[in-house]
This record gives sequence, structure tokens and C-alpha cells, in this order.
Amino acid sequence: MRPSGRARDQLRPIVLETDVNKYAEGSCLARFGDTHVLCTASLIDAVPPWLRNSGRGWVTAEYGMLPRSTDSRVDREAARGKQSGRTQEIQRLIGRALRAVTDLTGFGERQIKLDCDVLQADGGTRTAAITGAYVALHHCFQHMQRFGAVKAIPLREPVAAVSCGLYEGEAVLDLDYAEDSRAQADANFVLTASGGIVEVQATAEQDPFSRAQYDLLLELAEAGVRDLVTHQRAALGLD
Amino acid sequence: MRPSGRARDQLRPIVLETDVNKYAEGSCLARFGDTHVLCTASLIDAVPPWLRNSGRGWVTAEYGMLPRSTDSRVDREAARGKQSGRTQEIQRLIGRALRAVTDLTGFGERQIKLDCDVLQADGGTRTAAITGAYVALHHCFQHMQRFGAVKAIPLREPVAAVSCGLYEGEAVLDLDYAEDSRAQADANFVLTASGGIVEVQATAEQDPFSRAQYDLLLELAEAGVRDLVTHQRAALGLD
Amino acid sequence: MRPSGRARDQLRPIVLETDVNKYAEGSCLARFGDTHVLCTASLIDAVPPWLRNSGRGWVTAEYGMLPRSTDSRVDREAARGKQSGRTQEIQRLIGRALRAVTDLTGFGERQIKLDCDVLQADGGTRTAAITGAYVALHHCFQHMQRFGAVKAIPLREPVAAVSCGLYEGEAVLDLDYAEDSRAQADANFVLTASGGIVEVQATAEQDPFSRAQYDLLLELAEAGVRDLVTHQRAALGLD
Amino acid sequence: MRPSGRARDQLRPIVLETDVNKYAEGSCLARFGDTHVLCTASLIDAVPPWLRNSGRGWVTAEYGMLPRSTDSRVDREAARGKQSGRTQEIQRLIGRALRAVTDLTGFGERQIKLDCDVLQADGGTRTAAITGAYVALHHCFQHMQRFGAVKAIPLREPVAAVSCGLYEGEAVLDLDYAEDSRAQADANFVLTASGGIVEVQATAEQDPFSRAQYDLLLELAEAGVRDLVTHQRAALGLD
Amino acid sequence: MRPSGRARDQLRPIVLETDVNKYAEGSCLARFGDTHVLCTASLIDAVPPWLRNSGRGWVTAEYGMLPRSTDSRVDREAARGKQSGRTQEIQRLIGRALRAVTDLTGFGERQIKLDCDVLQADGGTRTAAITGAYVALHHCFQHMQRFGAVKAIPLREPVAAVSCGLYEGEAVLDLDYAEDSRAQADANFVLTASGGIVEVQATAEQDPFSRAQYDLLLELAEAGVRDLVTHQRAALGLD
Amino acid sequence: MRPSGRARDQLRPIVLETDVNKYAEGSCLARFGDTHVLCTASLIDAVPPWLRNSGRGWVTAEYGMLPRSTDSRVDREAARGKQSGRTQEIQRLIGRALRAVTDLTGFGERQIKLDCDVLQADGGTRTAAITGAYVALHHCFQHMQRFGAVKAIPLREPVAAVSCGLYEGEAVLDLDYAEDSRAQADANFVLTASGGIVEVQATAEQDPFSRAQYDLLLELAEAGVRDLVTHQRAALGLD
Repeated sequence: MRPSGRARDQLRPIVLETDVNKYAEGSCLARFGDTHVLCTASLIDAVPPWLRNSGRGWVTAEYGMLPRSTDSRVDREAARGKQSGRTQEIQRLIGRALRAVTDLTGFGERQIKLDCDVLQADGGTRTAAITGAYVALHHCFQHMQRFGAVKAIPLREPVAAVSCGLYEGEAVLDLDYAEDSRAQADANFVLTASGGIVEVQATAEQDPFSRAQYDLLLELAEAGVRDLVTHQRAALGLD
Repeated sequence: MRPSGRARDQLRPIVLETDVNKYAEGSCLARFGDTHVLCTASLIDAVPPWLRNSGRGWVTAEYGMLPRSTDSRVDREAARGKQSGRTQEIQRLIGRALRAVTDLTGFGERQIKLDCDVLQADGGTRTAAITGAYVALHHCFQHMQRFGAVKAIPLREPVAAVSCGLYEGEAVLDLDYAEDSRAQADANFVLTASGGIVEVQATAEQDPFSRAQYDLLLELAEAGVRDLVTHQRAALGLD
Repeated sequence: MRPSGRARDQLRPIVLETDVNKYAEGSCLARFGDTHVLCTASLIDAVPPWLRNSGRGWVTAEYGMLPRSTDSRVDREAARGKQSGRTQEIQRLIGRALRAVTDLTGFGERQIKLDCDVLQADGGTRTAAITGAYVALHHCFQHMQRFGAVKAIPLREPVAAVSCGLYEGEAVLDLDYAEDSRAQADANFVLTASGGIVEVQATAEQDPFSRAQYDLLLELAEAGVRDLVTHQRAALGLD
Repeated sequence: MRPSGRARDQLRPIVLETDVNKYAEGSCLARFGDTHVLCTASLIDAVPPWLRNSGRGWVTAEYGMLPRSTDSRVDREAARGKQSGRTQEIQRLIGRALRAVTDLTGFGERQIKLDCDVLQADGGTRTAAITGAYVALHHCFQHMQRFGAVKAIPLREPVAAVSCGLYEGEAVLDLDYAEDSRAQADANFVLTASGGIVEVQATAEQDPFSRAQYDLLLELAEAGVRDLVTHQRAALGLD
Repeated sequence: MRPSGRARDQLRPIVLETDVNKYAEGSCLARFGDTHVLCTASLIDAVPPWLRNSGRGWVTAEYGMLPRSTDSRVDREAARGKQSGRTQEIQRLIGRALRAVTDLTGFGERQIKLDCDVLQADGGTRTAAITGAYVALHHCFQHMQRFGAVKAIPLREPVAAVSCGLYEGEAVLDLDYAEDSRAQADANFVLTASGGIVEVQATAEQDPFSRAQYDLLLELAEAGVRDLVTHQRAALGLD
Repeated sequence: MRPSGRARDQLRPIVLETDVNKYAEGSCLARFGDTHVLCTASLIDAVPPWLRNSGRGWVTAEYGMLPRSTDSRVDREAARGKQSGRTQEIQRLIGRALRAVTDLTGFGERQIKLDCDVLQADGGTRTAAITGAYVALHHCFQHMQRFGAVKAIPLREPVAAVSCGLYEGEAVLDLDYAEDSRAQADANFVLTASGGIVEVQATAEQDPFSRAQYDLLLELAEAGVRDLVTHQRAALGLD
């Protein structure tokens, strides 16, 4: 039934590869099928002005798409002179998701900037970005730990994200672009390894959907995130 | 327990006043307690380029806050030269919410622009904006009907929005700023009169929350929206 | 002769209402007929860099129009990414007008920001804005006086503004849009209660006008401002 | 009494030189003492969209200052990415002043763009710009007449501008920077050769001024403009 | 003598990999050592306005660096709201270089947009971009040829680029960042397979250099480009 | 053979005039035939942040064209809200050229800003700008020397620039616009009085050119710059 032939509850092939950038303190190339997002974590020895002398650090994110990451080339945001509303919405989401599992008092007055750049897009770029950014962030803290900048990794538990949607009346996991563009409803779930809800964004693309349908989507997401967390732990060498 | 003394499932005093602008085809001043949003619907006899010759219309929204709508004055976005990510996120949400209940084939190749300007903010501006924008849009269609521009009102059913959150461990309805700024979780629900889900945006501000907590929030929202729809119908003289 | 049926020297119905905003230190909703301008005065505990350590304060203004304040919707300046030349011209005028009657040495190194937002426009928005901004500013100083931040109100005398113009060959007071759009000449006068001239901006829209005609306009304005000052004093409870 | 030693009613040395640009259809370098403004008139074979098929032409102006035209270097507006409010105010004024004496139906659907660039500024740049722009515009129409594009010069009469002000309590003509920066009041008058008023902008820099003082300023301006018109006619070879 | 241990006339390891993007009509990941540039060629069925009805096509380029492509993170140009002068300079250079070998009359009224995005930078990003963009462009024409859109590949001959410089007094080929940041002179050569000069940009970073030194740099570049062209032909399967 | 009738190795009439601005510490109006560039040097008592406490100064340049400096009026960059890529490229080139001959340790922690504004353009504006900017800079140092701010002029030797190109198959010196717009190749050379190469920018506009052709262009430039340096020394009163 799905264009890709996947089962309703089947993720695309997931590859999380670390150490993909020579300079970044942490990095991860996250592939969800043909969606490829390059995530880097950059350690900056200064916090935003409103956190100075607070003893706390900060984690923030930026997001971008290469012009030909998509089927039809999109204009370069740097050339247009501003980031779209969609871009800003996504980078705010990534930042909130990662801060929700980070102990901001645990790494001094430093800032970690997560850059999530989409090299190729086939649906679900924001969920791949969150999943990869977690790996890059953890990777960055491992680097800081090696150099004594932190004693323990200041992350409470893994966080990952996946989209679910109603496609031809059925709830399916991890929509690719062919599904996403025709879905009746589309929901992005950011969940923790222990099943806690960090963020839900659910949108009826056509008719409103029911609470029962919503519950099906959430159940798919819970299973999907458990799977993604396993990939994250493997990529970080934690198993 | 709530700073305002309200019961957990109690909305703030709701006032939806129509005909508040001399020029707009539809208008509504929506008050949720001390949150006041002026909503106007402007009928424009042209659609965006990508809808020309499609026979379809379009509904879109813009959102803004007056600089001193808040406790501390915020910079004027026109002076800063760009709309914030938050502003863009909210105006995209309002547009999606209204389009979800509008028959875009039912009013010709015309565009209706919903301007939601916050005169005073005390939490929940986006939900007041959606609730008021629905009234302004319906009001605009009533105006078009009087002049024969549409035969029937091309709206499938009312839509309204309300926020819920976890405040001191309890699920509460329609957060004001005093609650919102200290809530553990904050969720905005856009629901239809018949209970359909149009959009959910739920965010853990501190620790992740559980599915059971989420269900409590949704139940509060369902009751709240039923109440708001009653106010909408009364404002539009439909009872 | 006038579209509104007013006498040549007759103002529109004037309503100046204070305390229209929960947060602002001073506020006034100024109505000149169907022209409605919401004026707030915000007290800021810092001056611009070039006044630091001068012992002097500053008063400045910003101006904006809601998109549907006018007959045809105008683009939102925040969305277009810049303020128009007209907007900047008007906000500079408002600031100069208020500073002309303010003792800038009388309230410490503080800044008062006057936001004048047009909710509905029917001609004369800049003159309503100046007239209302004076009330909001005085109101703000009354607030500061109550809390001991100033001993005396640091305002030398009231200032108000009104437009006059040549309409169908006749000099008329306080043009509404129907008159303004067809006037041969249009002049904005900012005058003090004692008749001093603070600012004159007179423009021939079609043929140049004569000095005798200019004198007639000024005389109308002098009477009009006397009337407006009476409204200001009443709104501030000074009679 | 004046820093320059001039009499109260004495203009600075005025030089209006035409044909100062190889390409422009009309051009004039206007010098009011040390204030030097290069004015070019560019003929463009298209009108703004709102005038298409109206049979009417348009005249508009742009204004700029070279960064080191002033005593202290000012930032380049092109580098800052926007024109200041002052710049926009001045270029709108120049455009209105010239349109007031132009028969817009007399040169077809064409646009003439007046660029007024300040090479050196010593007070009164806007009045020098208007005075020089009139010469450049007339010069451009003479060029069009030679090539048969217009039969008669579509200008009703000359227009020129001069500033007056209250300096050390006295009314003086054509303020230079040393006077302007210390004036109690400053007024710019745009008048026609026959004495008609096109535009007045009068501002009290410190205390409000009286109607009697205003009348003195206007009388100085009337004499000054008569003098400037003589210079304009000579520069255009019309005597 | 070189930090990398390379011989004076030795290129870094060169890898040119095609088919690295699912959507682009042509693509090449160009690696010059640790400098990695992703080049895509996007075929667009429309030319810029000034080429309409000319029968000619156009080739243009855009360039960008990912924020953490460099040792210290640089600000995202999309977030800053404009492209730097350096970025614009480089993308103009890439476009000119490719147009110099393209027969613009040989592929109809179409545009090919070359996006060169630096994933990792270690000196020489503009030369890697030109070298990779040639491969992506040829690759795109091969694709068009397969679908009959062009009969012959409209490229006159290969073009490639390399930098040379004076490092510790010696002329060296293909500077990496460690060399570039300390070079006395830095020159970028864009040459064709047959040795023709397309573009030279030579800059003395410290003292001026002599014509004899310049000749040494050009000779190194000629040999380097011969080598790069061999890599290009291999990547395109032309040998 | 040349449109102007000049010999292949003949410069246009060169005029370098100093003291053309009342305020600037150094100034030069550089005329290369009909190309006129006004260059001012502004002394600023502060360096960019990255040079504070370094004991070093800085020299930088800005470039602009008046809208009607060209045959067809170009849009004003300040009105468009950004500087073009060409403008940025040229101003970066001017800055590098002048810094290459300046002893940045020889005038304290000060900045000199060179503004090069094109009043009239007939080809070669960047080379006239560099040649004139050198005079303005030297002029500024002479001014500083008179007031004791520097002991010796911190310039190692004169620098000047000239363009050469291949026009109808022949190498010619100092292209005017008629030649430039039809040249096969165009090269800008920045050379010192002693023949050192500071910068070369050579571009094939049509077919690639050969090394032998390049050598002819360089030889023309060497002779041209020797001539320009003579003009510079005369303008500065150094002979």
C-alpha cells in the first residue's frame, strides 16, 4: 500500500554516522532513507547576553536546505536575504527538543550551536535533524569530557523524532515525500527514550482527524522512537 | 490554586464583538480576559499567482503585536525590519486552521486576508486570534452573501482554539500569562465544533510529559472549544 | 458644503480616553471622528547612547497603521521589511512635537517611547496621534509623580495638532479623508495652548496657494487647537 | 552678527551650472556657498504601473549624501542597507515641489527621475537640491523640445526653495550649518516665481515661535526666492 | 618545507565523484584534500528576462559555506540576511569561468544553475568549486543528451582551476589553509585543457611580487590544471 | 583603430586634482578622460574591534556610483537596500591595493576610510579609483604630518592601476567604455612605482587568451602605471 512497499510501522533505512566533519566538536550525518541531514555541534565559549553570569549554558539550532536538496531547486535563503517562516519554525523546534533533555547547568557558561543542513530531502527533514542533532550534541559532550570540560555528560536521556501520518486512510510511520505530499494528516513527535513527550505537532492537511486516529499515530511514533534511540546509542558507541 | 482563582476547567471571560472596523468586510475583537486581539477579514479580488485560473480561492493570515501590548515593551517588527520566527509561526498556524474548515472552491478566485493584531497580551494570543479570526471570516462571508458574491457560507463548521497546560502539576484550561510563564507543559489545540482535531502543538517546557497527561489536556480543550463555539455563534447572530 | 455637513470651523467629534492599556505607564485612545489612534507611553530606564551621563532624558515616537485601518488594505510594514518614508516622516514629527514642550532635564536619564498605532484611519492620523500622545505622555508623568520619580510634571504647556486645508476653494478645519483626498492644499499645524507655533507643514496638492489663504488656515488651526487642549485637560482630569 | 558676516537678508554666493554630466538629459550643479548638490534629470520611457494608459507622465526625485559631504563622515546608506527617514523625507519633498509646477499631461507617458546628490554639505541641502533640480528638469525639457518630444516646455513657472530661521533672536535668510545648528527655529519655503506657496516646513527647534516671527521668515524667503529665480533663468539662458 | 609534506608542484589528493544527489541533473562532490565542495547542476526551463527570445541559454553559479565548514564556525549567511562580498565575488567568478567554455547557443533557452556548497574548507574552495562545477555541468549535458534535449555536449573544452602562491619564498601549487594563511602572494588560475587563460586573480598579501615570480606561479598552475583535467575526464567516464 | 583615435599604448587625458572637499583630511578628483571619481580620505580615531590594542592602524575603502554616472541610469544602491556584488568586489580591491603599500604600524590605532564615488563613468572606474585614492591617502598623511600625528608618511611607494585589454585582436591600454564593452579580454593591473605586482585581475570575456597575449597586456600596464605615478607625484607637489 505504501509507495515504498514498507510496512505501516516500518522506518526507512536509518544510518547515523559520526565524525563526518574535521572541525566540529560533534557531528553526525543522519540518513532516513533518501533524506540526508548533516548535523554539527559547535562549542562556543560565550553565552547569549541574557545568560551572562548565570552559571548556565545554552543549546540552540540552525537549519537550512541546500538549494538542490529537493526535487525542484529552491531559492537559496542567503540570496533571498531572509530565512523563511518554515526554516525558522524548524530551527526553533530543534533547539527546544534538544534543550528539553540537556542539563543546562552542567557545562558551564558555554553555548553549543547545532547546525542541521539538509543535503538531500525526501520528507521528514526535521525529524532526521533532531535525531542526528542529538547524536552530534552527545558526541560534542564526549569530546568535552575527554578534555575535562565536563565531568559527566549533561544529557538526561536520549531524544529522537519521527513523523507519522494518515495516508490513504491508514496510520503510517516515517513518511517519505511521496506519502507526505498526499497525507490527510501529518504529525511530528519528539519523544524521549523513556517514552516522555517533548513536543507534538499534528496538523490536519485536509479534513480534521479524530482522537482515535491521533492515538494510532502516537503509538506508531513510540515504537519508531525506540528504534531510533537504538541507532543513536550504536552510533555513539554506547552499547 | 490558579493565580486568577479560576477553576481548572474554567475559561477566562470571553467577549467576541463584531463590526469593530468601519472598512473591513468582516471583523471581530476577541477578548480572552486581558488578551485582546483585533481580527479583520479583508476581501481581495485576486488570488496568489499559483492559484490563477484554478477556480479556487485562498485564505491567509497575518499576525502582529503592538509594541506595548506586553508588560515590557517589545521592539516594533516594522522598525526592526523583519518579523520574528514566532510571528511567522503563529500566522502560518492561523492560516492553516481557518483553511481547514473553509471550502476553498466555494467563493471564486478571491483571497481573504485575516489580520490578527494583538492590542493587549496576557497569554493565549494565538488561540484568541484563531477564535476571533473564525468570526471575522464568517462575518465576511455573510457580507459577501448579502451582495450575492456567494450563495452559501463556504465554511464546513466552526473552528476555535484554546491552550491548556500543566501548572503546578495540574492540567488547567486557557492559561493566562502568569500561568504560561511557569507551566511545565503548554499545548495549543485547534478543534472543530464537532470535536475534530485540526492542529495540536504541545511542548514540554521543562520535563517531558506523559501520554496520560496529554490526554487530560485534550479533554479540557474539547470542553473549552465547545464553550468558545457557543460564543462564536452568538457573536454571529446564529442562535 | 462639506461632505460631513460640518461647519467650516468645526472639529469632528473628539474623544480622548485614558487608561486604555493594562501595561503602559500612560495611554490614550484618541478619536477624531472615525480616525482612531491608540497612543501608549512606555517608560524605559535607559537613554540612547549619546545621552548617557548627560543627566537628560529623551522622548521619542513610533507610528504605525494596522493593515486594514484604511479603506483598501495596505501591506503590513513588518512583512514588507521596512517602514515607508511616510511612516518615518510622521514618527519623526510626533517626536519633535512632544519634545518641544517637554523639559528633558526634568525626569532623569530615562526615555519615554510614544507608540501611536492607527486602528482606523479617516484622515488626520498624524494630528490625532500628536494630540493623543500628549495625553499619554502627561499621563505617564502623572504615574511617575505618584511613585516619586518626578516632583513636578516636566511639561511646559499642552501641545496639540490639527489639519486645515482648502476644499472647494474654502478654508476648512480638521479634514476627513473625503476632504483630504480632494483638497487643493493641506496643512498640519502643531501649536501650543498659548498659541506658539511648534511645527507647520503646508503643502499645495495642486496649484500653489497664497499667503492670504495660508493665514486663513492658521487662524482655523488656532481655534481648533484651543478646543483640543480643552479636551486634553478634561481627559487628564485637570479641570 | 551672522558667523559668515552676511546681512540678515543676504543669500550665500549662488552658482547654478548646467551641462555638468555627459549622459543626463538635464543636469545642474547647484552651489549655495559651500553646499554643493549635483542634480541630474533622467528621462525614462516608462511610467510607474499606476499611470499606464493614463496619458500622463511623472516626475520623482531621489536624494543622497556622499559619506564625506559632511564635517564628520556619515555611514554610506547603501552599506547600511537602507535610506534614513531624513533622506526619504527630503526626496519626497523634492518630488512634490517639482510636480507642483509641472504639467504632467504635457510630456506623454514618460518619467523624469531627478537625482540630487550632495557632494558637500554646509546647511540647506534640500533647498539647494530643489533649486537645482528645477534647472535640471527645465534643461531636460529643453533637450526633449529640440528632439521634438515636447512642443512646449510643460512647466507652469519656476520654483525655488530657501531656508530661513531665527538665529540669536533675529530672522535670517539661507542658513549655513553654523547657523542651522544653533537656530531657535528653522523653516524651509518652496515658492514659485510669482510668489505662490508650494510647501512650508517650519519647526521650532527650542521654544515655540510666534505668528509674527513666522511672517518675518516668510518675507525673507519671498525675497530670497525672487533672487534664486533670477539665477535659474540665467543658468537656463532664458534672459 | 610545506606543512603537509607535499612537493612544491604536488596537488592534494583529488577525488571527483559524480551522481551524489538524487535530484540534480548533474552533480559532483569535489575533494581537494580536506576541502570538500558539493556541486549540483540544476536545469531550469526558463532564461533570465534579458535573454527571452534570444535563442540562447545561460549558465550561472551560487556559492555558500556551511557554518561549520571552517575551523571556527562562521555565521550563516541566510541568518545574517545577506551574502558577504567574498561570497558574491566567488560565485560571479565560478559563473564566468564556466560560461567561458560553454556554447550558450547550444542548449536552447534554458538556464543551468550551478550550486557550489562547501561542506568542509581547507583552502582553495573556489578552485575546487570551479573544477567540480565543470564536471556537474558536463554531467548535466550528458543527461540532456540522453533525453534528446541536446545533440552534442555544448562545451568547447574542459576548464579547471587551481591556486598557487608564494610560501616561505617559494612558489607552491594548490595551497591548503595552513599555507594560504601565511602566503606572501596568492593567485587563482582558471585555465582550459588546452592551456588557454580564462581568469587570473593574483594578490600580493604582503609585499608586491615580481613578474618572474608571477611566471613561476603560472607554470605551476598549467601543470596542475593538466592533472585536474585528467581527473575530470575520468570522473565523467570519458577515457 | 581605437574608437577614440588613441594609440594602442596611450592613456586617456589624466587629471588628478587635490583639495576638492572642504572637510576630508585628504581628497582627489581623478579623471581618466570622461571617467570621474571623487576620492576622499577620512581619518577616524578608532580601529575595527579586531585591531584594538594592536598598535596598528587600518585602511579600508568604499565605492559607489551615482545613479546617472552611466549612460542608462542605474538604480540607487541605497534605495535597493544593498550593494551589488560588483560594488563589493571593487571596494575590497581598492582597500587591498592601498594596504599593500601602507605601513599599518606607522600611524597609530587609527583608521582611514577611502570613499571612491563615481560621478561619471566611461570605463575603468576601479583603476581611476585606486589611482585617485592613493593621492587622497597620501594627502591625508601629509595633513597628519603637519599636525604632528605622524612623523614620516607611512607609505612605502606609490601604487596606481590601469586596465588593458584585447580589442579587435590588439592589446590596448586604458580601455574606455566603447572598447571595454566589446573587448575579448579585460585585465586590471595594480602595480607599484617600482614595477611590483600588487594585484592582477584578468578575465577572458569571450575565448580564452594565451600567455603571450597576457604578457603584452602586462607590458602596456607597466608603462601606463609609470605615467600615472608621474601624475600622482605632480598632484601631491612632490616634484
